[in-house]
Amino acid sequence: MADDTEPMTRFPVPDIEELPEDIQDRIEEESERAGFTPNVFPAIGYRPQQARAFIDYHDALLEETDLEREEIEMIIVAVSGVNDCLYCIVAHGALLRIYAEDPMLAEQVASNHRTAEINDAHRAMLDFAVKLTEDPAAVEDEDIERVMDHGFSRKAIWDIGNVTAFYNLSNRMAHLADMRPNEEFYTLGRD
Amino acid sequence: MADDTEPMTRFPVPDIEELPEDIQDRIEEESERAGFTPNVFPAIGYRPQQARAFIDYHDALLEETDLEREEIEMIIVAVSGVNDCLYCIVAHGALLRIYAEDPMLAEQVASNHRTAEINDAHRAMLDFAVKLTEDPAAVEDEDIERVMDHGFSRKAIWDIGNVTAFYNLSNRMAHLADMRPNEEFYTLGRD
Amino acid sequence: MADDTEPMTRFPVPDIEELPEDIQDRIEEESERAGFTPNVFPAIGYRPQQARAFIDYHDALLEETDLEREEIEMIIVAVSGVNDCLYCIVAHGALLRIYAEDPMLAEQVASNHRTAEINDAHRAMLDFAVKLTEDPAAVEDEDIERVMDHGFSRKAIWDIGNVTAFYNLSNRMAHLADMRPNEEFYTLGRD
Amino acid sequence: MADDTEPMTRFPVPDIEELPEDIQDRIEEESERAGFTPNVFPAIGYRPQQARAFIDYHDALLEETDLEREEIEMIIVAVSGVNDCLYCIVAHGALLRIYAEDPMLAEQVASNHRTAEINDAHRAMLDFAVKLTEDPAAVEDEDIERVMDHGFSRKAIWDIGNVTAFYNLSNRMAHLADMRPNEEFYTLGRD
Amino acid sequence: MADDTEPMTRFPVPDIEELPEDIQDRIEEESERAGFTPNVFPAIGYRPQQARAFIDYHDALLEETDLEREEIEMIIVAVSGVNDCLYCIVAHGALLRIYAEDPMLAEQVASNHRTAEINDAHRAMLDFAVKLTEDPAAVEDEDIERVMDHGFSRKAIWDIGNVTAFYNLSNRMAHLADMRPNEEFYTLGRD
Amino acid sequence: MADDTEPMTRFPVPDIEELPEDIQDRIEEESERAGFTPNVFPAIGYRPQQARAFIDYHDALLEETDLEREEIEMIIVAVSGVNDCLYCIVAHGALLRIYAEDPMLAEQVASNHRTAEINDAHRAMLDFAVKLTEDPAAVEDEDIERVMDHGFSRKAIWDIGNVTAFYNLSNRMAHLADMRPNEEFYTLGRD
Repeated sequence: MADDTEPMTRFPVPDIEELPEDIQDRIEEESERAGFTPNVFPAIGYRPQQARAFIDYHDALLEETDLEREEIEMIIVAVSGVNDCLYCIVAHGALLRIYAEDPMLAEQVASNHRTAEINDAHRAMLDFAVKLTEDPAAVEDEDIERVMDHGFSRKAIWDIGNVTAFYNLSNRMAHLADMRPNEEFYTLGRD
Repeated sequence: MADDTEPMTRFPVPDIEELPEDIQDRIEEESERAGFTPNVFPAIGYRPQQARAFIDYHDALLEETDLEREEIEMIIVAVSGVNDCLYCIVAHGALLRIYAEDPMLAEQVASNHRTAEINDAHRAMLDFAVKLTEDPAAVEDEDIERVMDHGFSRKAIWDIGNVTAFYNLSNRMAHLADMRPNEEFYTLGRD
Repeated sequence: MADDTEPMTRFPVPDIEELPEDIQDRIEEESERAGFTPNVFPAIGYRPQQARAFIDYHDALLEETDLEREEIEMIIVAVSGVNDCLYCIVAHGALLRIYAEDPMLAEQVASNHRTAEINDAHRAMLDFAVKLTEDPAAVEDEDIERVMDHGFSRKAIWDIGNVTAFYNLSNRMAHLADMRPNEEFYTLGRD
Repeated sequence: MADDTEPMTRFPVPDIEELPEDIQDRIEEESERAGFTPNVFPAIGYRPQQARAFIDYHDALLEETDLEREEIEMIIVAVSGVNDCLYCIVAHGALLRIYAEDPMLAEQVASNHRTAEINDAHRAMLDFAVKLTEDPAAVEDEDIERVMDHGFSRKAIWDIGNVTAFYNLSNRMAHLADMRPNEEFYTLGRD
Repeated sequence: MADDTEPMTRFPVPDIEELPEDIQDRIEEESERAGFTPNVFPAIGYRPQQARAFIDYHDALLEETDLEREEIEMIIVAVSGVNDCLYCIVAHGALLRIYAEDPMLAEQVASNHRTAEINDAHRAMLDFAVKLTEDPAAVEDEDIERVMDHGFSRKAIWDIGNVTAFYNLSNRMAHLADMRPNEEFYTLGRD
Repeated sequence: MADDTEPMTRFPVPDIEELPEDIQDRIEEESERAGFTPNVFPAIGYRPQQARAFIDYHDALLEETDLEREEIEMIIVAVSGVNDCLYCIVAHGALLRIYAEDPMLAEQVASNHRTAEINDAHRAMLDFAVKLTEDPAAVEDEDIERVMDHGFSRKAIWDIGNVTAFYNLSNRMAHLADMRPNEEFYTLGRD
């Protein structure tokens, strides 16, 4: 592959072949789907047991959810924009373009979700995700009710919250390691 | 049990007996160790698959680590203090008192780690955890070197970072759900 | 006395016997009531005339007031939580537990008054105290009316404001001197 | 008197003649010195015992001090500038012009002490006062040493700290009451 | 001229006679009107073509506008107060005193527009200017409607916005160069 | 043209043909160069005289400068990233990709200039631009010296400052009007 972006700069990147087999399989699966190996996988492999937990948490949020995939990616991009996380803005920006079938939505959500071209329900959803990111101690019952008024179930609120929380974790891991998005992510879903 | 604190106020608390068996077992194990069931377990059971991932992530951080348990609890209390998270300050404050064998350390670290009675290495460790919490995009190579200068391995830096990241997740889940610490946690380890 | 916590670390602690007699008397009185000498007294004795003014201000706020003592301690703990002041969180946290007869209230108010188990009037009172602490220039007529709507008199508003203002002073003196709470305060009122 | 500025807008202003005699005397003394009655005195008279404590605290800071009066006013104006307090900026700005014999210093210190035309020692003194105002929990031993390196005694550090702390109190009382400076203060010391 | 304040400290101040003639003419015009040469003119002359653009932008805002001159100066002083810009607070404070014929308004608006003695329409206008200064990405349709409800035209909103934006530019140029207001500005319009 | 993005949502967009002829000519020139009419031009045409000043200011910064065009675009993207300005991030992100001949640089600089793949001189340049954006009153002589140590002339410092200042203006105009970048900008310079 032409891409020679280093997955991260602050920790040695492990050889995928030396990772535990279940993690290798999981990475291969993702690589086949994407056509390349997203840099986050070799990067987090630095600590294999922690990596397995990271991947499983990510998968649980996609599998046990009342949210559409497009909504999940919207939340991730908004949260990562607030946290100024290059890796997640670029990689999940690509996924958002693909799942929302909208080549301009990623930049809009990453820079300022308030003026993004989204419906009112998604605006309320992102207001909540951004508040839980920026000022979590200030979240109150009314914030939750405001999102539910737009048709989200109580379980969906939890899911919005947990996606937000997990990317507050992920953004910090990416900043810690200085993770670099693969070149492919910058252009995926733009046409 | 004498304690009738509700585990959380914003979502219905599931019956532990209706959770998947592996999670029941895991909760039972924790309950036996503590002498009571920490409220976080029934609370996160609201979304069982996500709960399993949450518990596994927590366990991975304790098992695959270059840090002492006392150091991990110190980080958790400092991060939770910055994020104003009642549940984690009180529950992990108790654990910090126990593991550090110091009845006054929890309040010191939760309110202002800069003046806590800890050694220079732990001060540097907490400076890093607090920066990664408050301003993750500003973390630079020098911040990492400063902590390593105090004798922490590069792997330990990753571990400090991941504990910090995970409690940025946990604090947000506790704020989302308005989780309430068990009465027992307030007094554990005070004598 | 078993407690060997230094009252402060950044200024020499004066001998109480060398302080002016009226201050010695006042300290003795407090020590008898508490069963020990709260560290703030020897600490502020570093500048005796200023110390006298400090004690008198404190006393005036307790004597000329439309507030219950429990309410005053609630305000102090909330303000000190915002200002991350170890001495005041621990010492007045003990007083709050005692006056409110609630062993769990101090941590709740210190970490996040919004989710503390208090009534609506006290929530409004603490919202006001926290706003006057964090963003005093933004206080407006409506903020005052909102608290009065909960039954507080106009004089009580002034008293809330002055307690808040005085602990914005006290918290800064404690940070300046690095005052350390007596060991006794950590456990007082917990049972 | 030509000036008809109301001393404050949010609480009823008491008649000076109905205040306790010692406070009346103290106000008269100030009025004679200034040539008019500074609005803060009738304003704080709303709660006479608290007012007495306020005046005594103020006096203690002027009497028991290692600082020059000009330095004290400099600190007050810098702190009040950070806290956006109209009353104290205007009233103590006038005093600063008078004591420093400099008609342009007040605006310089109130808007941005970093570029005010003051010597290095006063710059260090104001850096410290501003840090103790904005981020008191971050004050460390080094901050104190940095000011002492400019020739301030340890007692002077305490005095700088207490003046800073007291005007963090005063600024909040002025914001609470919406105190208005007398018209005279705007022009005093300008020629 | 008696005033010997240096126009700026961080860049060499050009001789006015060496500036392009059209700029010299423009400066002479301003100097005649004011009775002295405002320091901003020689200062920005450091880069003549940029200076011409700066002056023309300023002039366009005064000529093509739905705002009164008094309103423009009010906005400038409020924005400069938020940005702590000595030059603009003092120079435009003088203009505000003159155009509003109010010797006390400048300090009120510069320190805290919320309690300045202005009408409700001007309060709404300044709320908008301050929000666009402090948190521009949070401006929403409702903010604009709120100002229009007070009788401002849509074109006036644009003008408020552009004056605000231009002084966010000017304040930064003044901070960059450490521009110093002429002594005259401190007292103009005070009687 | 396929692109039907509205140039802005909060003000009526003028017909270019009804603008003053010199502005029409200037817009035509830009449109020919780009192959489409950047939305900023019709948008700012809402106030033609102000628009002329805006365009002239922009041109002056490109013509009278010690900076490379690539450096100017880098500063614009960094500043616009801090200010969360969609229009400028996307439009000038395209220009940065083109002038720097680097398809990945825009996202790096917009999200976090600290980890962008740029040389040390450009890092120092952007540190300065970001500080002047976020905390202009804190800029000091040392900040300027730090950039000059990397080989920038004093005139270049002024130019960095004025580009930064002008985009603090432009970002606010774009937020005011809710300007929307043309679809073309999202993909320009990506291959």
